[in-house]
Amino acid sequence: MFISLEGIDGSGKSTQARLLAEDLRARGVGVVLTREPGGSPGAEEIRALVLEGDPDRWSAETEILLFTAARRDHLEKTIRPALAAGKVVICDRFADSTRVFQGVTRGDLRDKVNRLHAEMIGIEPDLTLLFDMDPAIGLARAKGRQTAEERFEDFGAGFQEKCRAAFLDLARGNARFAVIDAGRDVATVAREVAALVHARLSAAAAP
Amino acid sequence: MFISLEGIDGSGKSTQARLLAEDLRARGVGVVLTREPGGSPGAEEIRALVLEGDPDRWSAETEILLFTAARRDHLEKTIRPALAAGKVVICDRFADSTRVFQGVTRGDLRDKVNRLHAEMIGIEPDLTLLFDMDPAIGLARAKGRQTAEERFEDFGAGFQEKCRAAFLDLARGNARFAVIDAGRDVATVAREVAALVHARLSAAAAP
Repeated sequence: MFISLEGIDGSGKSTQARLLAEDLRARGVGVVLTREPGGSPGAEEIRALVLEGDPDRWSAETEILLFTAARRDHLEKTIRPALAAGKVVICDRFADSTRVFQGVTRGDLRDKVNRLHAEMIGIEPDLTLLFDMDPAIGLARAKGRQTAEERFEDFGAGFQEKCRAAFLDLARGNARFAVIDAGRDVATVAREVAALVHARLSAAAAP
Repeated sequence: MFISLEGIDGSGKSTQARLLAEDLRARGVGVVLTREPGGSPGAEEIRALVLEGDPDRWSAETEILLFTAARRDHLEKTIRPALAAGKVVICDRFADSTRVFQGVTRGDLRDKVNRLHAEMIGIEPDLTLLFDMDPAIGLARAKGRQTAEERFEDFGAGFQEKCRAAFLDLARGNARFAVIDAGRDVATVAREVAALVHARLSAAAAP
């Protein structure tokens, strides 16, 4: 089973990904916890190119290509081998982040993103957990982190509002998505996420 | 006018690109001499990722994406502005190198390369000079250079034979190509290249 976690910066995805991995491991489930951009040695090198430096460093089109390159490497080296070994893959961001961050924020490039995805990636997660929350809170959380990886945070609050709406747009009417209210405390969100994933795993294991 | 120089490693492209730029500048023609992968600050950073390290570091598919990302940045930041300013752009390698090095050497990915090019790049050179020569000589020349950028040279001589054939395949029946016998001495090749380019520039300038 391939699970992705999506949402705006500061929505708690990474914390929830870690808690979900711990919960499943405690139940004896084999888990690979990974993230994008990155998740394989080559893709992590591409990560530094796209997340650091000036917001205007790359055009949205060049970014789409760089993120897709990183994703292809991640898929070949980490995700496919883990799925083939029967593991649950928990991935902090996947293609939906490209659909949102590159697809809608600087012109409408959604068709380009989707054609490139169909051509070079193909796979979609079995379950996508969308962590939805007020961007003002998310941005404050993300800014508190003090990291060099702030290119997208530097696009500002209007940018994050647009991204929130675009994520909700993707989720609407798409059965692979579960929208989580990420404004609540960490433990409450973690319980909801775990319950959701247990139900899906039981359903998948049923004869 | 947009001129690309193509050919296997060690075929003398870079030397001839430089000599052609000098010849045109001496005649008062505005020239931008550039190269791929690279040719813009962002694309030069991607260059290091693809040209250094193990031959097996990236799959052909990931390489296609990385080269296309570098090309998109190069196009936006260097090639289009130079063409818009009325300059002659001389480019050491362009999309035909991807068609050959990624398109035919590890399975047949030519359709993928072409679809990605159509989607994200679009432009083709007005003139492509193909430097054709015996790969054994080319490889010996390239190996004499002592650089860290030898990933593709490390694929070996059979690889270069395949590439030579694929370049000639691309040129066959395609009016934008001129095939140059690159086995001759540098000055002779330079004279032929200059004559060819002068004729095209005169034809382009004719009323």
